[in-house]
Amino acid sequence: MIEVGVIGATGYTGLELIRLLVNHPQVNLHFATSKSRAGENLSAVFPSAADIPLIDPEKAPLKGTDVVYLCLPHAESASVAVEALDAGLRVIDLSADFRLRDAAIYQQWYKVEHPAPELLAEAVYGLTEVVRDDLPEARLIANPGCYPTSVLLPLKPLLDQDAITDTIIVDSKSGVSGAGRKPKQMTHYVEVEGNLSPYSIGRVHRHLPEMEQVVSWWSQKAPAMIFSPHLIPAPRGIVSTIYVQLDAGWNEAKLFDLYNQAYRNEAFIHVLAAGETATYAHVNYTNRCAIGLALAEGTLIITSAIDNLIKGASGQAIQNMNAMFGFDETVGLPQ
Amino acid sequence: MIEVGVIGATGYTGLELIRLLVNHPQVNLHFATSKSRAGENLSAVFPSAADIPLIDPEKAPLKGTDVVYLCLPHAESASVAVEALDAGLRVIDLSADFRLRDAAIYQQWYKVEHPAPELLAEAVYGLTEVVRDDLPEARLIANPGCYPTSVLLPLKPLLDQDAITDTIIVDSKSGVSGAGRKPKQMTHYVEVEGNLSPYSIGRVHRHLPEMEQVVSWWSQKAPAMIFSPHLIPAPRGIVSTIYVQLDAGWNEAKLFDLYNQAYRNEAFIHVLAAGETATYAHVNYTNRCAIGLALAEGTLIITSAIDNLIKGASGQAIQNMNAMFGFDETVGLPQ
Amino acid sequence: MIEVGVIGATGYTGLELIRLLVNHPQVNLHFATSKSRAGENLSAVFPSAADIPLIDPEKAPLKGTDVVYLCLPHAESASVAVEALDAGLRVIDLSADFRLRDAAIYQQWYKVEHPAPELLAEAVYGLTEVVRDDLPEARLIANPGCYPTSVLLPLKPLLDQDAITDTIIVDSKSGVSGAGRKPKQMTHYVEVEGNLSPYSIGRVHRHLPEMEQVVSWWSQKAPAMIFSPHLIPAPRGIVSTIYVQLDAGWNEAKLFDLYNQAYRNEAFIHVLAAGETATYAHVNYTNRCAIGLALAEGTLIITSAIDNLIKGASGQAIQNMNAMFGFDETVGLPQ
Amino acid sequence: MIEVGVIGATGYTGLELIRLLVNHPQVNLHFATSKSRAGENLSAVFPSAADIPLIDPEKAPLKGTDVVYLCLPHAESASVAVEALDAGLRVIDLSADFRLRDAAIYQQWYKVEHPAPELLAEAVYGLTEVVRDDLPEARLIANPGCYPTSVLLPLKPLLDQDAITDTIIVDSKSGVSGAGRKPKQMTHYVEVEGNLSPYSIGRVHRHLPEMEQVVSWWSQKAPAMIFSPHLIPAPRGIVSTIYVQLDAGWNEAKLFDLYNQAYRNEAFIHVLAAGETATYAHVNYTNRCAIGLALAEGTLIITSAIDNLIKGASGQAIQNMNAMFGFDETVGLPQ
Repeated sequence: MIEVGVIGATGYTGLELIRLLVNHPQVNLHFATSKSRAGENLSAVFPSAADIPLIDPEKAPLKGTDVVYLCLPHAESASVAVEALDAGLRVIDLSADFRLRDAAIYQQWYKVEHPAPELLAEAVYGLTEVVRDDLPEARLIANPGCYPTSVLLPLKPLLDQDAITDTIIVDSKSGVSGAGRKPKQMTHYVEVEGNLSPYSIGRVHRHLPEMEQVVSWWSQKAPAMIFSPHLIPAPRGIVSTIYVQLDAGWNEAKLFDLYNQAYRNEAFIHVLAAGETATYAHVNYTNRCAIGLALAEGTLIITSAIDNLIKGASGQAIQNMNAMFGFDETVGLPQ
Repeated sequence: MIEVGVIGATGYTGLELIRLLVNHPQVNLHFATSKSRAGENLSAVFPSAADIPLIDPEKAPLKGTDVVYLCLPHAESASVAVEALDAGLRVIDLSADFRLRDAAIYQQWYKVEHPAPELLAEAVYGLTEVVRDDLPEARLIANPGCYPTSVLLPLKPLLDQDAITDTIIVDSKSGVSGAGRKPKQMTHYVEVEGNLSPYSIGRVHRHLPEMEQVVSWWSQKAPAMIFSPHLIPAPRGIVSTIYVQLDAGWNEAKLFDLYNQAYRNEAFIHVLAAGETATYAHVNYTNRCAIGLALAEGTLIITSAIDNLIKGASGQAIQNMNAMFGFDETVGLPQ
Repeated sequence: MIEVGVIGATGYTGLELIRLLVNHPQVNLHFATSKSRAGENLSAVFPSAADIPLIDPEKAPLKGTDVVYLCLPHAESASVAVEALDAGLRVIDLSADFRLRDAAIYQQWYKVEHPAPELLAEAVYGLTEVVRDDLPEARLIANPGCYPTSVLLPLKPLLDQDAITDTIIVDSKSGVSGAGRKPKQMTHYVEVEGNLSPYSIGRVHRHLPEMEQVVSWWSQKAPAMIFSPHLIPAPRGIVSTIYVQLDAGWNEAKLFDLYNQAYRNEAFIHVLAAGETATYAHVNYTNRCAIGLALAEGTLIITSAIDNLIKGASGQAIQNMNAMFGFDETVGLPQ
Repeated sequence: MIEVGVIGATGYTGLELIRLLVNHPQVNLHFATSKSRAGENLSAVFPSAADIPLIDPEKAPLKGTDVVYLCLPHAESASVAVEALDAGLRVIDLSADFRLRDAAIYQQWYKVEHPAPELLAEAVYGLTEVVRDDLPEARLIANPGCYPTSVLLPLKPLLDQDAITDTIIVDSKSGVSGAGRKPKQMTHYVEVEGNLSPYSIGRVHRHLPEMEQVVSWWSQKAPAMIFSPHLIPAPRGIVSTIYVQLDAGWNEAKLFDLYNQAYRNEAFIHVLAAGETATYAHVNYTNRCAIGLALAEGTLIITSAIDNLIKGASGQAIQNMNAMFGFDETVGLPQ
């Protein structure tokens, strides 16, 4: 039984995290904070939530806590991480603050100086399936972005083989919770419903450098990426449709072998059968990543689906915690 | 051909109004204003709109304009109305400012002193089907609220007969555009989608005094009302399900006679056949009010449907304009 | 650990039931059947489901099973119940077959002779909170309808006091899964989305006699009911807005006392604070019933919300099983 | 004033067509047919529709009709076309029957022998903007498919320049009305809502050969295509996100010049400003095609949006009729 805290409980990520944590058999939720709603219960913010008291982040009892989750805006998160690490806690950061290893690139994309560049080298980029061996010793985990999770997991087997010969085209479709809970014109119900919007397409979305950084770790060729996110009239879910050009010599049988081999022991990664495509319905309300493969004259079309709030955020964060503390990785997570 | 202006073009009501006006064969859109978006085109606000330039309201060329539509928040609207009337224009006000005839009741419900009480006696409450004979002479029209339109049109035939014997129960279901375009937590896509919320139920919604005022004009008995609005995950549409207790002696045949008689010449009022209920699908994108009747052991259940943005706002406003200027009432309106 | 079977696994009720059962710590899912999909896995029908093999109902291994859930169409269910009872199993029937105690009334509403009238007297109408003391001995449970569950739980405290003086008006709003999984024109996405439809209003829906039967058990006055269901563009959830006329002498304080007293020990019944209304967001994906109360000049407006697939079907069925077998009633159920 | 008939009025295409035709000032709707609903009014099928009587197709008064629209399943359509042409009518066919010029390719993709191969050479593939000069003489128009319309219009300027150097990748997202009105499991509300599904991806959808045929007409290089359609939880709209590799030497300025030049006189084609992307909101309920352009390191990302029922079907069919009969091409069509 470990003691956990959640800093920033009133966003969609915080809500989902707490929903899962309160049912996790090896966890006690020690505290949950909210600047704006301190003194209220979480159920006053979300009618579906349990009656969790929200406290002022200034009063968070770090002492006696084993691990803290940070669900804060970027740039705010890093300084809280410093404080928690100094107090001897382990930190799982769901913001973007520790995902990019290079403070200069961070500043270029997030338009602010990095608040704690000295921690960048230490932070583990927490794609659990890839880094689980490093987690028992990790103090600080950078929980991956939602889009990158949906893209990197299905690319890994190919990149390990240096099989991709040209620019990777990623066409992603995300539900609206990925845009956050703060009301904006673009998330007004009447603007979203019945609509579908490409946005930040090409090479301008902040998840692009995150993905290209990891791709460069995994492949000497380090192909460039084109990334086109689309806002979908659905509350949650991501499908990334990924187009990759392959070396001659690949066929569907070899591809399925590669993927089934790579992921056969993974509880949360579902490689679908030939002819199937990954949909929100495969993954929503679970910690799964579903992967479909279709080869069309040299172009491999990967469909990859996750629940952006679970495998793309809170679920993966808990999976990381499970690995950190030596629990079964699937504990407390919907399969 | 008349010259019209729209003050406040960037809400959902203003958008719908302009969409209809630019296709109206006897109207020239002289100007459209927006405080926040002056200098831009309406299509920059709504991708579906035509390229209508938005001007600062201070610069609205009232001179040379025949009639102006006010799509402003309550309390703001009344003073603009004064100015326009003083400049010799006729005014169709889509706010609540001139709907209640008693300034004290206005203040009680809208929490602000009425800005122009001297105009209350003159304003015509613009349910076109009821007041069309007064419109050719009217200078100032109070365009009815969306919920009241859906409720009052189907109650009129019964109230004219003093047939209702007890409290009228109105259970209304509205799409989200009725809550306005300004982003709020309650209109965030993720809060609305998959949800359904009763709100302001009983005797607390501002449309209640508006409805009871009109009911008291039409019936000596003036039954009280219970009004329960519900927010529905749909962009537009209202269905009001109305429960009325009737005098003994009514049966379905007599009721259908009454309604068919009352509304047989109305282009926009569709009395449905026995066994049918009014749905959003009967009315959305039209200026219709669809009315279904079902009698169950002394309780009449009326289902009444309108498009809140058309018959419940901009369409009825144009219908009123048509009657004011002696045009065919249906011109420019989707049937 | 008990052995359970599910007959008819490929509807929305069966899917939800199995999703809950596979995570229930005191249950082993012994078998699941499907006539149309026998030989396939449940995940072939629902991508989100676990890999549960579907077997032909003819081959269901009743022997070695403790309790069987029937998720079948009415009239089909009763004869399977007979067979299972004869084989010594206990039966939880989610169809309508054992809800009405009078075979003649069943035939009047369901247009078919009752297949097993001899069992009607024995069947327990399974509103768990009301009949839990009878469940340890029960062989056959008639799981209540979704609408009746949402209506009867909030009416019980008033009916126990004989407090209702006039016809009860029930205006219910249901998501589409209540209409079943078989494709019909009325459940086509394009017909539902953006629409809202009252249907079977007044005294014609089959859940009306079910509700009136129970009301008559609980109150000597046995007030009549008017019942107006509405189809809502949402996948799941019911809100029933209930209008009841009360004896003089009731006020909000007394009403909240009554309800808080009645339900203070109930894990799944949430009596909301004054001023709050019950929404889908309070209950979806949980086994809760949320109840809001608002008094307006003698009319009590109750808002009552459930998830039609959980508290309105599969969740309540498991709650009944828990009570039957002496488990904690909340085990395996989302609170 | 011309006399028009609609064969097959009760699908979504037929409904939309009739909605537009009854408001077209130079058209009289002579008849509308339905096999399954003959004898009823169109408003009995669609509550929003006008009261158009539906007649048996056998009784369609071809005599006295100038042009007939066929809204029938493929293979059924062609033989009705023969009959209508023989009776001296002009024919606008909204099915796929006359889109492919090669009867063998038709048979390969539609799994049925072509019913009227002798007409294939004569049929005009009706992308109005491209073939308008041929329309005044045309007897038979093959109205293009919805996906191809969204893809071909934005590719035309590039193909005319032979500018595309590699396989064209088309990632399309369509609302559900494109799947037709007949209820199927995949169009059940509960299956679609909250979901997003890639389907028939790669080189297997029937619109692929239609697009490649036209691409080969326009470009000597005739690049191959990859086509990935996705089903979106929205009633209508298509966005195609198209990835093309360009010859060196292209930049955004040159691309915008090319497109603005190509489409500057087109009422229905909106080339968006740099930085904008095409969304459903740009086009739904209009006959527009909106085109956005973004260049990212040699890859041009085109976003192209149409309303699948209007520009992708009925609106383009009317635009074709307008051109056939010498009317202003925009008459009767929402801009």
